[in-house]
Amino acid sequence: MARTLIRGGLVVTAAEETHADVLVDGERIAALASPAAADAWLPGVDRVIDASGKYVIPGGVDVHTHMEMPFGGTVASDTFETGTRAAAFGGTTTIVDFAIQQVGGSLRAGLDAWHAKAQDNCAVDYAFHMILADINDATLDEMDLLVAEGVTSFKMFMAYPGVLYSDDGRILRAMQRAADNGALPMMHAENGIAIDVLIEQALAAGRTDPRVHGEVRKALLEAEATHRAIALARVAGSPLYVVHVSAAEAVAELTAARDLGLNVFGETCPQYLFLSTDDLARPDFEGAKYVCSTPLRPVEHQAALWRGLRGDDLSVVSTDHCPFCFAGQKDLGRGDFSKIPNGLPGVENRMDLLHQAVLDGHITRRRWIEIACATPARMFGLYPRKGTVAPGADADLVVYDPSAVQTVSAATHHMNVDYSAYEGRQLTGRADTVMSRGTVVVEAGKYTGRAGHGAFLRRATCQYLS
Amino acid sequence: MARTLIRGGLVVTAAEETHADVLVDGERIAALASPAAADAWLPGVDRVIDASGKYVIPGGVDVHTHMEMPFGGTVASDTFETGTRAAAFGGTTTIVDFAIQQVGGSLRAGLDAWHAKAQDNCAVDYAFHMILADINDATLDEMDLLVAEGVTSFKMFMAYPGVLYSDDGRILRAMQRAADNGALPMMHAENGIAIDVLIEQALAAGRTDPRVHGEVRKALLEAEATHRAIALARVAGSPLYVVHVSAAEAVAELTAARDLGLNVFGETCPQYLFLSTDDLARPDFEGAKYVCSTPLRPVEHQAALWRGLRGDDLSVVSTDHCPFCFAGQKDLGRGDFSKIPNGLPGVENRMDLLHQAVLDGHITRRRWIEIACATPARMFGLYPRKGTVAPGADADLVVYDPSAVQTVSAATHHMNVDYSAYEGRQLTGRADTVMSRGTVVVEAGKYTGRAGHGAFLRRATCQYLS
Amino acid sequence: MARTLIRGGLVVTAAEETHADVLVDGERIAALASPAAADAWLPGVDRVIDASGKYVIPGGVDVHTHMEMPFGGTVASDTFETGTRAAAFGGTTTIVDFAIQQVGGSLRAGLDAWHAKAQDNCAVDYAFHMILADINDATLDEMDLLVAEGVTSFKMFMAYPGVLYSDDGRILRAMQRAADNGALPMMHAENGIAIDVLIEQALAAGRTDPRVHGEVRKALLEAEATHRAIALARVAGSPLYVVHVSAAEAVAELTAARDLGLNVFGETCPQYLFLSTDDLARPDFEGAKYVCSTPLRPVEHQAALWRGLRGDDLSVVSTDHCPFCFAGQKDLGRGDFSKIPNGLPGVENRMDLLHQAVLDGHITRRRWIEIACATPARMFGLYPRKGTVAPGADADLVVYDPSAVQTVSAATHHMNVDYSAYEGRQLTGRADTVMSRGTVVVEAGKYTGRAGHGAFLRRATCQYLS
Amino acid sequence: MARTLIRGGLVVTAAEETHADVLVDGERIAALASPAAADAWLPGVDRVIDASGKYVIPGGVDVHTHMEMPFGGTVASDTFETGTRAAAFGGTTTIVDFAIQQVGGSLRAGLDAWHAKAQDNCAVDYAFHMILADINDATLDEMDLLVAEGVTSFKMFMAYPGVLYSDDGRILRAMQRAADNGALPMMHAENGIAIDVLIEQALAAGRTDPRVHGEVRKALLEAEATHRAIALARVAGSPLYVVHVSAAEAVAELTAARDLGLNVFGETCPQYLFLSTDDLARPDFEGAKYVCSTPLRPVEHQAALWRGLRGDDLSVVSTDHCPFCFAGQKDLGRGDFSKIPNGLPGVENRMDLLHQAVLDGHITRRRWIEIACATPARMFGLYPRKGTVAPGADADLVVYDPSAVQTVSAATHHMNVDYSAYEGRQLTGRADTVMSRGTVVVEAGKYTGRAGHGAFLRRATCQYLS
Repeated sequence: MARTLIRGGLVVTAAEETHADVLVDGERIAALASPAAADAWLPGVDRVIDASGKYVIPGGVDVHTHMEMPFGGTVASDTFETGTRAAAFGGTTTIVDFAIQQVGGSLRAGLDAWHAKAQDNCAVDYAFHMILADINDATLDEMDLLVAEGVTSFKMFMAYPGVLYSDDGRILRAMQRAADNGALPMMHAENGIAIDVLIEQALAAGRTDPRVHGEVRKALLEAEATHRAIALARVAGSPLYVVHVSAAEAVAELTAARDLGLNVFGETCPQYLFLSTDDLARPDFEGAKYVCSTPLRPVEHQAALWRGLRGDDLSVVSTDHCPFCFAGQKDLGRGDFSKIPNGLPGVENRMDLLHQAVLDGHITRRRWIEIACATPARMFGLYPRKGTVAPGADADLVVYDPSAVQTVSAATHHMNVDYSAYEGRQLTGRADTVMSRGTVVVEAGKYTGRAGHGAFLRRATCQYLS
Repeated sequence: MARTLIRGGLVVTAAEETHADVLVDGERIAALASPAAADAWLPGVDRVIDASGKYVIPGGVDVHTHMEMPFGGTVASDTFETGTRAAAFGGTTTIVDFAIQQVGGSLRAGLDAWHAKAQDNCAVDYAFHMILADINDATLDEMDLLVAEGVTSFKMFMAYPGVLYSDDGRILRAMQRAADNGALPMMHAENGIAIDVLIEQALAAGRTDPRVHGEVRKALLEAEATHRAIALARVAGSPLYVVHVSAAEAVAELTAARDLGLNVFGETCPQYLFLSTDDLARPDFEGAKYVCSTPLRPVEHQAALWRGLRGDDLSVVSTDHCPFCFAGQKDLGRGDFSKIPNGLPGVENRMDLLHQAVLDGHITRRRWIEIACATPARMFGLYPRKGTVAPGADADLVVYDPSAVQTVSAATHHMNVDYSAYEGRQLTGRADTVMSRGTVVVEAGKYTGRAGHGAFLRRATCQYLS
Repeated sequence: MARTLIRGGLVVTAAEETHADVLVDGERIAALASPAAADAWLPGVDRVIDASGKYVIPGGVDVHTHMEMPFGGTVASDTFETGTRAAAFGGTTTIVDFAIQQVGGSLRAGLDAWHAKAQDNCAVDYAFHMILADINDATLDEMDLLVAEGVTSFKMFMAYPGVLYSDDGRILRAMQRAADNGALPMMHAENGIAIDVLIEQALAAGRTDPRVHGEVRKALLEAEATHRAIALARVAGSPLYVVHVSAAEAVAELTAARDLGLNVFGETCPQYLFLSTDDLARPDFEGAKYVCSTPLRPVEHQAALWRGLRGDDLSVVSTDHCPFCFAGQKDLGRGDFSKIPNGLPGVENRMDLLHQAVLDGHITRRRWIEIACATPARMFGLYPRKGTVAPGADADLVVYDPSAVQTVSAATHHMNVDYSAYEGRQLTGRADTVMSRGTVVVEAGKYTGRAGHGAFLRRATCQYLS
Repeated sequence: MARTLIRGGLVVTAAEETHADVLVDGERIAALASPAAADAWLPGVDRVIDASGKYVIPGGVDVHTHMEMPFGGTVASDTFETGTRAAAFGGTTTIVDFAIQQVGGSLRAGLDAWHAKAQDNCAVDYAFHMILADINDATLDEMDLLVAEGVTSFKMFMAYPGVLYSDDGRILRAMQRAADNGALPMMHAENGIAIDVLIEQALAAGRTDPRVHGEVRKALLEAEATHRAIALARVAGSPLYVVHVSAAEAVAELTAARDLGLNVFGETCPQYLFLSTDDLARPDFEGAKYVCSTPLRPVEHQAALWRGLRGDDLSVVSTDHCPFCFAGQKDLGRGDFSKIPNGLPGVENRMDLLHQAVLDGHITRRRWIEIACATPARMFGLYPRKGTVAPGADADLVVYDPSAVQTVSAATHHMNVDYSAYEGRQLTGRADTVMSRGTVVVEAGKYTGRAGHGAFLRRATCQYLS
């Protein structure tokens, strides 16, 4: 198999910043070495990549994407093919997408459907979480089977009554099962029952604009659900991973739980760190581009999120990538914000936005890699293959140019969606060369990979429990 | 220079567990590599060490020792020679000791005195903190000079009025200076003014036994001082490192500060994790062996300390190694607990006790290395030389046998003190081979190093600030 | 109308302890006066009661009773006649009982049914809360009507799914209405959805004893529901009164809410202050006598409840009087704890148990009157008629002998139930003479009142909001 | 002795609002009665006061005044004669002033000096706290004697090193003594040691304006000292009363302590509720009028203080009345804010400012009386003589006109100081008739009392401990 030597870069991982050459042998990383030591391999190397002045980082691990997801009568606009290709362009080499159980259907059927969508289509490696939409005795039994197949995390919804919602009893039962089989319960934590009352009241009062979406999905109701999910996990004896945390009050609930030593983890997303209700309030229905749930919050919440990320009360930044075109999809909610498909594109932008956060002083360089690569990999049982640069790990590597300046735009991005949530924003830093399991898939702005290169990853259980 | 290849071990760092061979070239680590990649170096290697079935870990970094320290009319019984040799036996390859300013004297004079004690005597590398005992304008100016010389942390005492004590105004001024010059203020946080009242009252009431030492140095007064030190650091805009935290209530103060995102850090010591007031209450004056300050606490406090370590509200475990022989030294306090020299031996035991904690389920294997090697190195500006296994780092390496069983005893330990605080305790895990800057200093239970091998380390400033 | 002068007692109210004579003129208190000033009335007084060495206190106000309440196929064993007579014997001169809306029925129908039960039957004055079992648009409109009729508080259940349970959306809507019309939402705060899962699992595992009732209704799930109810009240902008708080963790939620300045109030009951899971675990099905919801807690919780009462995080002690005979009623749950009718007798014991708490040092004498008389009256809009001794107030007065010793027993109590939860307990203090609106209804251990003396009280809205 | 009947008013106490006539017999209140019952006394009444449309309230109790206090080379401008007369005009009929121990002197000498100033000079009753400026064994013994003489509270200073300051050891010893003899320790809680460093640095930097006084006396340093005082009281087992709380962060410390059930109490003053750093920043040295310690805070702190008062985390509003004329006294600090005499006039304004707070919705009418009359009386052992309207209490009564409109001004006030801190502020509410022990001392805007009417009050110990 092919051997590649990446020379002269600064290898940045969650823990170390090391001037070292990296030897790739086939699909795996074989060594990190000083230049003198690395010289010994030169005779047998097929390719040398010059990383001078650049970082060599693990490929990003985005543990929250929704490719081709049906939602409210339409379907998220990125396929696994377009979405994973965009991910690769953005320096992300692993995604974990959400397979969905249909109400009345089995987990098996839901998972198979997602396997069918992804198989032979992905540019980079992928794995699945399973969404539990109909928890019953059969579902609980199937959870054990899926864990054995490498689908080791299960998402539930305290929002969306009548659609994906599970009541507290069902959630408790699934958490109890997870406590037994090692799976990680994931939670969309919003009190959807209460929110739906507020939605109905807002619409009845003629308040139909996109910004009302943010007003009815109150921060207090995100915090309440977060608190409740933690309580249920305590009763069940299970860990808990709360997705897309956006409210300062919800971070406070996570902080309190973690101060108690509980295995409770929080994820946030770039949109909550870089966007706000100011975007939701954009005129001419432009706010619809920013409709997602949990919703964007007033800009003051961002400081709490950054502090949470620095102090590890928030452990992961994923994208919740779920793109819908402004024309033809977001449009469905004109005159009724509750009909706007929920979701934002982002899988391509995450690594760069977070590098910008390093430059802006929000986080350190190592913490950038930790929250975007290492912790998500460990959290979801992908270590030691993903998320780091070490002998034996998959050679998912990015040569990252920390000085490159780019302007984010739908005109140039590779996601299959007609707008960018960050249109016109200037960022410093960009992936130069992206390698997936030893194969260069993006180089010099060109896609050099292929659909089907990306393989399904059977995941171990959460590696972050104390 | 000599090249050594350590083969077949599991390299454990704060972040990774990697099956890799480690190449040492001269004083530095040159590479981590898969066996196949490592084969390329075999022709040029001087020695191969077989680490099969063992861990390869960074040498321990003990940032709190007191070799040859004068205290209450006697002197700590380990010299830099005996103490650092014992450290090496225990797998610790860096110590940071405390140079002491005399009241009325300069920092320079104090530091020079400690340089004189250590130079040409150490088995492993060493560095210094500076104790500020007499803060005034001249002292503050000298702080800048010491930072430039690699003495970048300054310890102050809220205890010991009339001896090492600084009042809140002096502390504030030193912290302000640290905020300017990048130094890290360290604090012995106990309200010594109040404690001295309680001591006087206890003695007046005829309560003279060693266990009274623990009763008068109340947990509430440790917590109070911790809270106050944090407040002063906030006013000054400086970071803060609290040494030898022993009370659950003090951990709670650190937790609250860290939840606010402050640069506040806590250290605890093995004695607080493994011993308790039950030891202080041992009959026949045996309790004197366990007299240290902060004091041992009731056993219930241990759970809070372990939780603090897991959740990073406590970041470092050091030893506060300060040995006094039971015969002739601890004796000074018969009939008056306040005259017992404060301190315990421990520099040789720390790595093994913490490995036992891994086996006991208190911490993970990686967290063991983090709190004992990586974080102390970063906290005190020794990274990337110390605390990790990576190309470019100093070759301070330990081949650690996780299965070896030992019984701790003064009869077999190498510290120059006539008792062990852990006498008779059985531990699993032991350093096999210990390397300091590429030189094997302990091997097969024998000391192969030499006094003077250990070099003074000029430290950078704290690398842990967010 | 008749004039009575009560002489020589110590008048104890929530705020004052005054040696004063009390003049009753018809149904009202006319004056408090020094003996010299009171002499002026002697010519016109019909009766003089000697209260020397005794207290003159306001009649107790028990705001949580369930007379003749249907539950699980049986009916609480006290009628309004027997229950209010027992109340009078115990020094309680006002009860607020719960009228129940039937699912599918109107508030009006529910309230009328309760009026029918109570009218012409009560020994002392009475009022009603309304239980909302089926919240819909019509219910919300009826709430306004009931407020106008003096039924100004509405209880909802987060427990008992399928029976009295309201989901968070319905609760939110009722709270919003209360925010508009001034009503006080009351909450049974337990996560019944989760608890029912645990009940089912316990029964499936053959765990059927009464003590399991306490194990499945976890403190964490009471605290969770309390937290959620507070969050919903914040969203609605309404106050909140949490009934029968039993868990320390729930008190902590109330404390946190009150520290924020929210209009959140808590009630506890004598059973939580004086009994524990030790009683629930009594052998031979005796534990069934102690089955109520929220359940009795481990004895350690009592300290938190007393502290809550002292610090006003708990504001009221009511009884939740809901008696079921051991023979024939509690029996229904032999072999299945979930079928044991929930409830305890207590309306006769409350004042004496709380006086005992004064003697035991848990609360002050004035706080006794505050939590048992004054605050419940204000909380539920009965002030200035009830709960105090002041000119103009209803002459609901108790001459209380603080030195009388009694032994509680079903053999001597006046409640219509075959056991006492406090059987054999010796208490110091007892009502001597009990007056309801100027009429002596209990005297020298004899009932001198009549069914029908007690009148329905139209209540104002909560007088405790800040 | 004379009998007076006050008819037709609304009697407002901390607990009740009662339409009742009040009979005064000699120096005491003899009765509260309905008009019909009161008619019986008419033959023997000397005077009838018509209170129709007005409130009858207990005279105010101001537990924090400094008449004729020496400070920084000058003396507070109100004598006991002028100050207590002004108090009477403002509806305050009891003051508790601070006698001061001289360093090196005895408590006896200090107390005698204050007795000499007050005796035969006061318009209304007065009592003393004792300031401990030099705590030693003799001082501690004297504390017992003073408690026996009715001086039952002792103030200490964590501020003003070298003047009134006590270190933590001395404070602890005095608290221990208080725990034994029942006295209430009072604390000026600011870290004066740290503040003096900041003062020196500010002056050295040429920052000399009055507003700098507020900047150097940081809220964090008030909170720190508050926390420390609480910790010391816990160690000593004593209660604690914190004077003139001004910072939100200090309120939070009190809240936390009270949530633990500790006997910790807080006092604030009108200046912190109605004024702010905006006043301290007034140009042309006008800010000097607002220099007091603790200092005025940014206006945002006021909400926390009001919330604290509503929720009883702050229990008392006193004035800290300590007037210095702008001309000739405040002047001493031109060019050096640290030389501005600390203090504000206020004894005449407190009752009216707090009544305005009732109208503004900050507190209820009953809470007004509670924090200004009832609680201060109980807190300092003056109950049942002062602070309420009840048979047997001293006839210190105010007929208060809730509709009278006044404009506060130095031109019209009766305090002996050349400015008003509230100049030009319009307030609704004013004392009409003021009675001290049965004697009318203010009526229709005229002083009808005399110097020497006011008597020294021997106080019991704190009546508020739980």
